[in-house]
Amino acid sequence: MQPTVKVIKIGGNVVDNPQKLQQFLTDFASLEGPKVLIHGGGKVATAIAKGLGIETQMIDGRRVTDAETLRIVTMVYTGLINKNIVAALQKAGCRALGLCGADGALIRSKKRAATPVDYGFVGDPVEFGLETATTLLEGGLVPIVAPITYDGESGALLNTNADTVAQTVAVGLAQRYPVELVYCFEKRGVLRDVNDEESVIPEINPSLYVQLKAEGVVADGMLPKLDNAFKAIGAGVKQVVICAAECLTRPGYGGTTLCR
Amino acid sequence: MQPTVKVIKIGGNVVDNPQKLQQFLTDFASLEGPKVLIHGGGKVATAIAKGLGIETQMIDGRRVTDAETLRIVTMVYTGLINKNIVAALQKAGCRALGLCGADGALIRSKKRAATPVDYGFVGDPVEFGLETATTLLEGGLVPIVAPITYDGESGALLNTNADTVAQTVAVGLAQRYPVELVYCFEKRGVLRDVNDEESVIPEINPSLYVQLKAEGVVADGMLPKLDNAFKAIGAGVKQVVICAAECLTRPGYGGTTLCR
Repeated sequence: MQPTVKVIKIGGNVVDNPQKLQQFLTDFASLEGPKVLIHGGGKVATAIAKGLGIETQMIDGRRVTDAETLRIVTMVYTGLINKNIVAALQKAGCRALGLCGADGALIRSKKRAATPVDYGFVGDPVEFGLETATTLLEGGLVPIVAPITYDGESGALLNTNADTVAQTVAVGLAQRYPVELVYCFEKRGVLRDVNDEESVIPEINPSLYVQLKAEGVVADGMLPKLDNAFKAIGAGVKQVVICAAECLTRPGYGGTTLCR
Repeated sequence: MQPTVKVIKIGGNVVDNPQKLQQFLTDFASLEGPKVLIHGGGKVATAIAKGLGIETQMIDGRRVTDAETLRIVTMVYTGLINKNIVAALQKAGCRALGLCGADGALIRSKKRAATPVDYGFVGDPVEFGLETATTLLEGGLVPIVAPITYDGESGALLNTNADTVAQTVAVGLAQRYPVELVYCFEKRGVLRDVNDEESVIPEINPSLYVQLKAEGVVADGMLPKLDNAFKAIGAGVKQVVICAAECLTRPGYGGTTLCR
């Protein structure tokens, strides 16, 4: 039987905090078996853009990626952040290898249509490079993926949401391996009481999910997250876990497991 | 018999010129068999450092890599330049995968001593990751290497001369494969008459090299280049070619071949 591949996603809040990131990387290095890390961007790109006098345009709270901004996020995500994570993991004895969607055609995407809102050089994944991923995993390497993908026809790099990248990697790998997708975020998991960090619901299956929605326990920002998670499960991912970055070495990551 | 691996190095002069780079990448994509590309840095890093108000310190014509400069060259070399080359090669049908020395521990190096001159975060290679390189090449992937390496003990990234990176890759791969190392530079090759681009010496073996040095045909900047090339040959590389970037598809690259 194939071993389960762990696909783990950390957001900008971990990337931006050196102590938190270092602890997370130590924990990640200690996880056994094949694994993939997807990291978000963080605030460094905005700071560097500002330093270079490039204004960050936002529409409805989302960054617009014009040509100049694409250069910045490419440099920061695939260069500065990705390579520093790789070097830190290598130091911790993990055979990390950093890449973005263009590398080995790992994630080909399509530039998002300019209507109704033109977000610029932003891509939505359309194809996963299972061959490349398999080569790396079977070679004992640990892919560290930055949230930049590419358009195969134009050769353009495209800025891509890191949650979407993680889902694409997980669903793509599920064609060949059992896959567990782990989203690290600010809370410990799905909470029964949003004000009580100890009220983590350990497991949610589709029928409990329907019930929790009806009760209003799951609402607001959690809804699209869980909808996406169950979509990934529907597309072959074995289970999706939502947990805190600092709980990576706990059993079940001390979080909420979504399953069939 | 193992096929020959072509290890090709381009310098900043090609990276800085979009037309020249595009033509080179089209030619590179068309080369058959296993291959590796090492690219230099170019002038973009200096421009971005200037934009951010970071002064580039030079000692004896060489860049000093302080902590701020290391951040910039990491972003520009491993991010901006490397990923744009990878995306362009993918578009041209080449299974490019970009990496730096930290990725898969491809090139571990040692920070250069601070005396007699402190060049800052600059590394000299000490170990090549043959296992990672083999995984990629046997998987049909084409490694595109940026000139940043890392120190395995501290986990620090280090700025490294691209010619040295190319030589390290070539000598390292020669442990397992026949290797041809190709240095693309400004001239077509070693010229008998420095003012005549048509006077390329097609082949130089060690005894001819001694003679050419005695005649003063090889002098100045060419001396360390050829000394290094013959060192690579002494360390197992089959042959080293010196040619112009625009001659990559010509027989023998229209350049000078150094051989045993």
